Amino acid sequence: MESKYQRVINGLKKEILAGKYQVNEKLPTESALMAQYEVSRYTVRRAVGELENDHYIYRIQGGGMFVQDWQKDWSNDNNQHLIGIIATHIADYIFPQIIYGMDQVVSEAGYSLMLSVTHNDHEKERRSLISMLNTQVAGLIIEPTQSALPNPNMDLYQKIKEQNIPVLFINAAYPNLHFPAVTTKDQAAEQQLVNYLFKLGHQDILGIFQIDDIQGVHRMNGFVAAYQQHPDIAYRSRLIMYQSSDDFDKIATQIKTAMAQATAPSAIVCYNDQLAIKVIDYLKQQHLSVPEDVAVAGFDDYQMDQYISPSLTTMTHEKEGMGTTAGQLMIDLINGRSIKSVAFEPNLVVRASTQK
Amino acid sequence: MESKYQRVINGLKKEILAGKYQVNEKLPTESALMAQYEVSRYTVRRAVGELENDHYIYRIQGGGMFVQDWQKDWSNDNNQHLIGIIATHIADYIFPQIIYGMDQVVSEAGYSLMLSVTHNDHEKERRSLISMLNTQVAGLIIEPTQSALPNPNMDLYQKIKEQNIPVLFINAAYPNLHFPAVTTKDQAAEQQLVNYLFKLGHQDILGIFQIDDIQGVHRMNGFVAAYQQHPDIAYRSRLIMYQSSDDFDKIATQIKTAMAQATAPSAIVCYNDQLAIKVIDYLKQQHLSVPEDVAVAGFDDYQMDQYISPSLTTMTHEKEGMGTTAGQLMIDLINGRSIKSVAFEPNLVVRASTQK
Repeated sequence: MESKYQRVINGLKKEILAGKYQVNEKLPTESALMAQYEVSRYTVRRAVGELENDHYIYRIQGGGMFVQDWQKDWSNDNNQHLIGIIATHIADYIFPQIIYGMDQVVSEAGYSLMLSVTHNDHEKERRSLISMLNTQVAGLIIEPTQSALPNPNMDLYQKIKEQNIPVLFINAAYPNLHFPAVTTKDQAAEQQLVNYLFKLGHQDILGIFQIDDIQGVHRMNGFVAAYQQHPDIAYRSRLIMYQSSDDFDKIATQIKTAMAQATAPSAIVCYNDQLAIKVIDYLKQQHLSVPEDVAVAGFDDYQMDQYISPSLTTMTHEKEGMGTTAGQLMIDLINGRSIKSVAFEPNLVVRASTQK
Repeated sequence: MESKYQRVINGLKKEILAGKYQVNEKLPTESALMAQYEVSRYTVRRAVGELENDHYIYRIQGGGMFVQDWQKDWSNDNNQHLIGIIATHIADYIFPQIIYGMDQVVSEAGYSLMLSVTHNDHEKERRSLISMLNTQVAGLIIEPTQSALPNPNMDLYQKIKEQNIPVLFINAAYPNLHFPAVTTKDQAAEQQLVNYLFKLGHQDILGIFQIDDIQGVHRMNGFVAAYQQHPDIAYRSRLIMYQSSDDFDKIATQIKTAMAQATAPSAIVCYNDQLAIKVIDYLKQQHLSVPEDVAVAGFDDYQMDQYISPSLTTMTHEKEGMGTTAGQLMIDLINGRSIKSVAFEPNLVVRASTQK
């Protein structure tokens, strides 16, 4: 004999297949179904649960049950075709271009993006990870938060790993998690930039690096590596290290101290262009000319670099290209293809801020 | 006598309060708790459900139970402090600045953004709405999709209304839903722009407007209204209407036809700057000079306008200001304050593309 819940399943399925309810149309309430089939709430829920698994029905919390797009091929499908992005920032600096690149690729493949921002704060990263897990995204592209510090959300990352959710890191990665990543060869690039300054005759270079992000640490290591190859002048190098949560004022005070010394730096290399633009502003306030008194270089080739005065020397960042690459790799991961990490090689872009 | 499930609640609560499990630490599995308290799975689930409501526990789908930040004041709290943004685009044109503005304000108020993009497609809007409802966001800021067309997702908007989720529209709104909105006075602004061209002596103006968005329709109405006030030359006006899904080629063909006529337009006003930039490019390919052969104007004061050649005459859009305003109104809504819709008044920015 047909069990009670099987009777509800067969009844509802028949009505849906017959077109009594259209796709996205609301189905009767649990209570209505209980009355219609003369069964308990438990039986209705069990039936609905199975129909949900078979993509005949979807539920909205507090909103009822609806007819799913059952004619679609769900065999290779995952929830809602959403790809989650968790990034430290999303709406300024180079991030819009990275996200634009991702969006182009994943949207062509029939996916939508769902973005969440951590402001480089671990508590917000935790919230984002929980939301994404609960939304059951098909895959996750993550820019790590304060990637150079121990991550208190490692339990959630482990959970993601156990659940086999496709994950790709961008800009930086947690090495011990062994997730693939799309990054920039930060260390080699910074070394190239400092070597270029050496060739211009600069020996007293001040490096200012954000050290709670792996990129910052890598760029700083590149700065150090360049000096290590010129040990005779290594003692003339200067470093300022800061955290993303530090105010610029703190950095400004240190720049002031450095510039007031007898052997003041003749060049300043900055963690990124965002910082370099602030540094140039500050130097102007201090009545110092760039590049006449001090050369300044950044990193990332920010869109605005060529329009500021003086225009900024920098190392490129792939931005949109990183986005399209990450998007393509994520689609590959979702489709079960094996992928390899990608590390882009930046190029030097010489502009007025380092050329007298 | 203490009921079974009350015994589980009290036991777990005691252990959490005593610090046996730290915040975010994983709790024993359902099966382990069944064994520990000698109760059924149903009893464990009921107990856990109550502890979840009281913010002692949170659950991750397929990942188990964890200790919630129970010392926090949850009285005025809603799920995860997330504000959902559903926009047609998020990572290019003027959208990053709007989102940046929102992010500044809501993040100061302790909220995070979760963004979803519809690409001006109703099916994707539906997916976004369902995800946001399932994530139980504290509020929703929505830019309507193809706002000038009937919306097949009205059932979900009704649901949102029934659930009293705070909703704010930006750029456009569905008038019959009576949600508050932050918009731009598009019609009056476009009329001002056309009047400025009249004053320069232009009488044959071609207007190109996207008509599946309310903004586009309003701007077109402004173009028409300007001519209505000069009925003697109204017959010299020309209009091209397009949909967001149309290729630019279609528009280009129509421009070519218009420019080949004896009384070719001496000026072109475009739905927005994104379109105006494409139009200028196309005119250059056709060996026409801007503004010598034909003046071109846009709308939105896109960041790049001043850097393109010739620089573009446009009407301003508040962008970051719209974002901060929308963010502030959303926080007000969440906190139960009554708010009023805001409509910004754009200003004319005259640049080289209309000045001979």
